Amino acid sequence: MEWPLTIAACAFLAAYATQILAKPQGALEAVAEVVLWLTWAVFLVDYVVRLTLADRRWQWFYRHLLDLAIVALPMLRPLRLMRFLTVLALIQRTTGSMLRGKVAIYTVGATVLTVFLAGLAVLDAEQNSGGSIKNFADAIWWAFVTITTVGYGDYYPVTVTGRIVAVGLMIGGIALIGVVTATLASWIVERVSLEAERTAIATESQVESLRAEVAELKDMIRALDSAH
Amino acid sequence: MEWPLTIAACAFLAAYATQILAKPQGALEAVAEVVLWLTWAVFLVDYVVRLTLADRRWQWFYRHLLDLAIVALPMLRPLRLMRFLTVLALIQRTTGSMLRGKVAIYTVGATVLTVFLAGLAVLDAEQNSGGSIKNFADAIWWAFVTITTVGYGDYYPVTVTGRIVAVGLMIGGIALIGVVTATLASWIVERVSLEAERTAIATESQVESLRAEVAELKDMIRALDSAH
Amino acid sequence: MEWPLTIAACAFLAAYATQILAKPQGALEAVAEVVLWLTWAVFLVDYVVRLTLADRRWQWFYRHLLDLAIVALPMLRPLRLMRFLTVLALIQRTTGSMLRGKVAIYTVGATVLTVFLAGLAVLDAEQNSGGSIKNFADAIWWAFVTITTVGYGDYYPVTVTGRIVAVGLMIGGIALIGVVTATLASWIVERVSLEAERTAIATESQVESLRAEVAELKDMIRALDSAH
Amino acid sequence: MEWPLTIAACAFLAAYATQILAKPQGALEAVAEVVLWLTWAVFLVDYVVRLTLADRRWQWFYRHLLDLAIVALPMLRPLRLMRFLTVLALIQRTTGSMLRGKVAIYTVGATVLTVFLAGLAVLDAEQNSGGSIKNFADAIWWAFVTITTVGYGDYYPVTVTGRIVAVGLMIGGIALIGVVTATLASWIVERVSLEAERTAIATESQVESLRAEVAELKDMIRALDSAH
Repeated sequence: MEWPLTIAACAFLAAYATQILAKPQGALEAVAEVVLWLTWAVFLVDYVVRLTLADRRWQWFYRHLLDLAIVALPMLRPLRLMRFLTVLALIQRTTGSMLRGKVAIYTVGATVLTVFLAGLAVLDAEQNSGGSIKNFADAIWWAFVTITTVGYGDYYPVTVTGRIVAVGLMIGGIALIGVVTATLASWIVERVSLEAERTAIATESQVESLRAEVAELKDMIRALDSAH
Repeated sequence: MEWPLTIAACAFLAAYATQILAKPQGALEAVAEVVLWLTWAVFLVDYVVRLTLADRRWQWFYRHLLDLAIVALPMLRPLRLMRFLTVLALIQRTTGSMLRGKVAIYTVGATVLTVFLAGLAVLDAEQNSGGSIKNFADAIWWAFVTITTVGYGDYYPVTVTGRIVAVGLMIGGIALIGVVTATLASWIVERVSLEAERTAIATESQVESLRAEVAELKDMIRALDSAH
Repeated sequence: MEWPLTIAACAFLAAYATQILAKPQGALEAVAEVVLWLTWAVFLVDYVVRLTLADRRWQWFYRHLLDLAIVALPMLRPLRLMRFLTVLALIQRTTGSMLRGKVAIYTVGATVLTVFLAGLAVLDAEQNSGGSIKNFADAIWWAFVTITTVGYGDYYPVTVTGRIVAVGLMIGGIALIGVVTATLASWIVERVSLEAERTAIATESQVESLRAEVAELKDMIRALDSAH
Repeated sequence: MEWPLTIAACAFLAAYATQILAKPQGALEAVAEVVLWLTWAVFLVDYVVRLTLADRRWQWFYRHLLDLAIVALPMLRPLRLMRFLTVLALIQRTTGSMLRGKVAIYTVGATVLTVFLAGLAVLDAEQNSGGSIKNFADAIWWAFVTITTVGYGDYYPVTVTGRIVAVGLMIGGIALIGVVTATLASWIVERVSLEAERTAIATESQVESLRAEVAELKDMIRALDSAH
């Protein structure tokens, strides 16, 4: 069930971007509109089928509030693409230094997708509102200024929808600072504590050789016993 | 004594929000005013009683300066609600990976309450000052822009009270970045160091089996001794 | 030699603040001016004496460039007060959880002193420049907005001196975020890793009791030996 | 091959700075132009030679996309100077507390070079665009305001090139916060966990002395055996 939903999310993203950026007329507009409704239908059907098949429907409902939000709020739909970068599932099972590489790739991917999406969504909300964000280049610039928490104030949203997108982006920015810092901290802590780890491993092998000596001791006593 | 104070804090918050947002007239205004004074009386009585019952009053006074501030500054009163999310006490006793879940829940709760409170307080201070923050939607938007340290500059306080609220919010923002980063860092450091922990646990069980072998050795020597 | 310099730094700070904030006339202005020159003389004499007494003068010169800057730049002089909070020296010798408490106290003290000093210095530089920072309340507000990296842009320096003060404050802000986050991270990492530490301590006591048993074993063999 | 490229990067930086800041006329302009082309030629020849000599050219191509960018984008060329501070290679091999000192030196060096370069590049892009950044002092000020994520909004780029430089600087800012925090966190975590390390080292030496005792035990049994 993952692939059709991922393709639907890609199609939604393409149609959504087309509608906002190209402002198509006639046939193309109709196609974009149909694609938007079709992808919505795919997500709705997926949601209803999974809810129907669930053993404990209320429990399933509470645990899948995000899926409900994806069905209800069109803007959230491409977030499924992040699941496509399903590194998070892999990360859960990864340990050691490989983890940091995966976290880094996922962070870059999620940041680029978030900036692109937030740029589209804020342009959609703001372009006819009398605010300062009026074209896609400015919207992307604004999204970068916001997610890095710089906030020049040359562009800012004035509509409620635009501000909700902005708050999401700011929270994303704090998470971004957090992930970058945490990954670096983990790397430095590990480098510095290599000494401690070496001690622990040395202790382990010492104990191993100690056990071998005790075993030898036992054989000697056994031999002593039978010699009598 | 916890429950009456928590209820008083809730009542204060409701009356304070009503007064600022609904600007009530006549009977409702009188009710809100009475509730504000009543909750203040509850906090004052609680403070005086605890001060009177204390063995070393000066020591108690110094250690409860925050409680004095809550009695003296109306705005700080709903902070008691954060105590209602008394996760901090639980956190002190929690270890292991449960800790991070509790920290996350507390962070979200405290952030939402802080943004709401700061929005109310800044609106109260700024709405008649000629500054740019004139309605609650703008005040909440300003609070989010400030706590995430983005700071567009489209809205900013101009009164002394508003600026004190803002400084509190900025310090809250730095704490927020700190908590998010620290929680993530702890998670990554743990994942990466699982290997080291595995070694430590392996050493522990090796030493245990070594002790069993030495005990067996002793029995063998005892048997050898009695055989003579 | 620490105490006279600390007192000189306090006197400098008081005279500097008086000169900028009270804009004194007549006798008071002369007193403030004299105090500024006297404290400068104290720092200069201290610097020259220590340079003269040094064994390797060039080496001492390179290692005490900060002291030269304190003599040359009046604004930096109160930084000696931070040395008064000489917790840093204590911190170097502190380990364990006490460290975090000391780091927290030093961070709060250094932040308050930095904001106060930067407010004074920026007001001194900007008040006659046509920029927007014209009174001390605004200068302190600007310093808080800058050190927390919020940066609304309602006030900003326009002179070169003011901008150098601002860059110092921004670097202080990054250090502030770093210290807050690092202290929290250390606390969470420790809490989470208490389990690992418990294992290590358990291993230590197990090894201890193992050694006791081996010693007993030796006594038994010795007894066995002498029994023959 | 490292030294000629480093010298070429220095020459490029000098010529680039001359061209933007001094706006030279006549002979000097020609010299600057020739130097820019010559350094470009050095980088191009280096790239082509290394690509030709590579065993697996496609693999080399993918792994050296940054070198291609350095050849294609003049602005990135001085980044090779950062490689001149080739501490990164040393850092890879460094462990223990020396690591933090090297990270600190590299961070300061890279930050200063990045601010200088970004100031030059943004001035180049913006000075004739109608934007607010019109001289080098303002450009450096803007670069500091951006890399510390303060973002007053008194100066901001309006051209596409200027904004790309700004996004690079913001990402650098997040990395800067990350490195500062991570280095501090590592220091605090280490200080706090010195106790744990002491336990581990104590265990190691205890196990060592235990081994010595077991060896003695073996000798005793051997003696017992031969006595019969």
